[in-house]
Amino acid sequence: MTGARLQDLSEGELLARLFPLFGAATGPAEVLLGPGDDAAVLAAPSGASVLTTDTMVLGRDWHDEWSAPEEVGRKVIAQNLSDVAAMGAVPTGLLIALAADPETEVAWAVGLAEGIASAAAEAGAPVIGGDLSSAGRGTVLIGITAVGDLQGRAPVRRNGAHVGDVVAVRGSLGRSGGGLQLLLAGRGRTHLDGPVDGADPVDRAVDELCLAHRRTDGVPWRSGAEAADAGATAMIDVSDGLVRDLGRVADASGVLVDLDGAALEQVAAGALTVALGAEDALRQVLSGGEEHSLVATFPPGAVPAGWQVIGVCAEGDGVRVDGRVPEVTGWDHFRAG
Amino acid sequence: MTGARLQDLSEGELLARLFPLFGAATGPAEVLLGPGDDAAVLAAPSGASVLTTDTMVLGRDWHDEWSAPEEVGRKVIAQNLSDVAAMGAVPTGLLIALAADPETEVAWAVGLAEGIASAAAEAGAPVIGGDLSSAGRGTVLIGITAVGDLQGRAPVRRNGAHVGDVVAVRGSLGRSGGGLQLLLAGRGRTHLDGPVDGADPVDRAVDELCLAHRRTDGVPWRSGAEAADAGATAMIDVSDGLVRDLGRVADASGVLVDLDGAALEQVAAGALTVALGAEDALRQVLSGGEEHSLVATFPPGAVPAGWQVIGVCAEGDGVRVDGRVPEVTGWDHFRAG
Repeated sequence: MTGARLQDLSEGELLARLFPLFGAATGPAEVLLGPGDDAAVLAAPSGASVLTTDTMVLGRDWHDEWSAPEEVGRKVIAQNLSDVAAMGAVPTGLLIALAADPETEVAWAVGLAEGIASAAAEAGAPVIGGDLSSAGRGTVLIGITAVGDLQGRAPVRRNGAHVGDVVAVRGSLGRSGGGLQLLLAGRGRTHLDGPVDGADPVDRAVDELCLAHRRTDGVPWRSGAEAADAGATAMIDVSDGLVRDLGRVADASGVLVDLDGAALEQVAAGALTVALGAEDALRQVLSGGEEHSLVATFPPGAVPAGWQVIGVCAEGDGVRVDGRVPEVTGWDHFRAG
Repeated sequence: MTGARLQDLSEGELLARLFPLFGAATGPAEVLLGPGDDAAVLAAPSGASVLTTDTMVLGRDWHDEWSAPEEVGRKVIAQNLSDVAAMGAVPTGLLIALAADPETEVAWAVGLAEGIASAAAEAGAPVIGGDLSSAGRGTVLIGITAVGDLQGRAPVRRNGAHVGDVVAVRGSLGRSGGGLQLLLAGRGRTHLDGPVDGADPVDRAVDELCLAHRRTDGVPWRSGAEAADAGATAMIDVSDGLVRDLGRVADASGVLVDLDGAALEQVAAGALTVALGAEDALRQVLSGGEEHSLVATFPPGAVPAGWQVIGVCAEGDGVRVDGRVPEVTGWDHFRAG
């Protein structure tokens, strides 16, 4: 008993089902022309656009056995808007490309669009255009392009950290990676499991981490602009793991990032430690990917409210924890093993 | 005897091979920050950005047995920039997402990037960002987002054609579709065949059409802005076939588009007729997709130089040829058969 599949509808019929879902979002920039023509037209009030693109692939970036389509939709938006925020910009618009096996169920595509629409509305970044393509058997890819506006700010790059700057994070660390670890180990909770009933703290912690992995809620989209206004010298979003992403800042800036082990242990407390134990919790804080929180460097004294200091920039190179090289790595897209 | 594959390189190593290829292009809008950070920053001189996205899929949009990677790269750029031009904008930048089987050869990815770079340089639309993902066995997808600037013009939409406007085309028609027909029939020439030697006119015509299908050269990227300046009332690029794409203009504008059979026969003369015969040549002019020429409606007397008049807008709906409904359809992405 399955419903209609993409191949049962014409492209026009499918677009007619999906477009109206994107109607609600409004944002800081005016949509001068939305979906339905050759291209969209989006205001760029400050005379420049911030642009980033990212692709998610079924079976690699998500699993249908774990994640509901609404959850996938929220996640693809989170990972793109966090790149816009990490430049110090505010999100203003989104383009969505879906390439899917024609046997994909229409209900899945509608759920995906609903998840995209809800995250887009929260972030104030309307869906202004998109594309549908058919792909081979079992293949589903979602390509997102996110657009933002710097509102007159200079972009916050990776190469501006100075010796003496403090390192601070806005948002959580390691939760998505912790959820992934649990799901891979067969201890995770999928969308089919529904809400936790009962008050068992381990169940609740496991549920919290798995939801973080599946949905990527709570990305601090507005905090990138706040950080820029506060004088952030460098910024990146945590997509491939804290150590790996801060390594990019360290390399580009020519500094050593020395993280404070005690501060990281504090971050690892709570659900991560309850679900995984202290050692794995800290490992996920250091190396867990797809968190899409923001990490930035600030002159001492300039750290805005809501950001947690986790380290300092010193002379040298690379990333250390209490002066030692951490034994963690992050995610690489092509390298086998 | 094969070369290195994507899985043999880290993402950083692969980017280090591909990024430098994109260095040469400059365009009408300043690239304030290029690839390598969380997002790119592109000037939007007129305070608005034109944005479109499109995906090409191995085995559906191109075949490696037919097309060299440089040809695929040129084609993906053509189809996106023509959407920007069809709004009356000039292209200003490109983002490229590649999702590929890790066993894809590095040499193929380099060839793709070279093709993209050459088309981007011709069009004045630098590559400002991108993304690499691994995909399943045999899967290769290329997602392009093209950005443009209207330079103060109002966007030329599909819904502005009036009764009495003339319909004109800039660029060729049916050649890409003709090449596809030949390749599907086993009469085509692939990138492995090399240049035609000898002067046989059929060989030369077949080669010309197959090249048009494989590379999509000669897209009139600057002519969209020219048409807008001349007062075009509606415009679209020919991606799914002339009749189908003009049908979108007719529907959106509430007019009937009546094409002139004699003018279309004139378009079908030359290589198309030499390679396919008169009947198939006309069929490809009416229904051949992926040509990415521009077709627009103008008030009588406003058609700019270089545009060829092929019809008029009248009271009614749909598209006719000399008053009759043509027996052609175009391409639909999901519908089977």
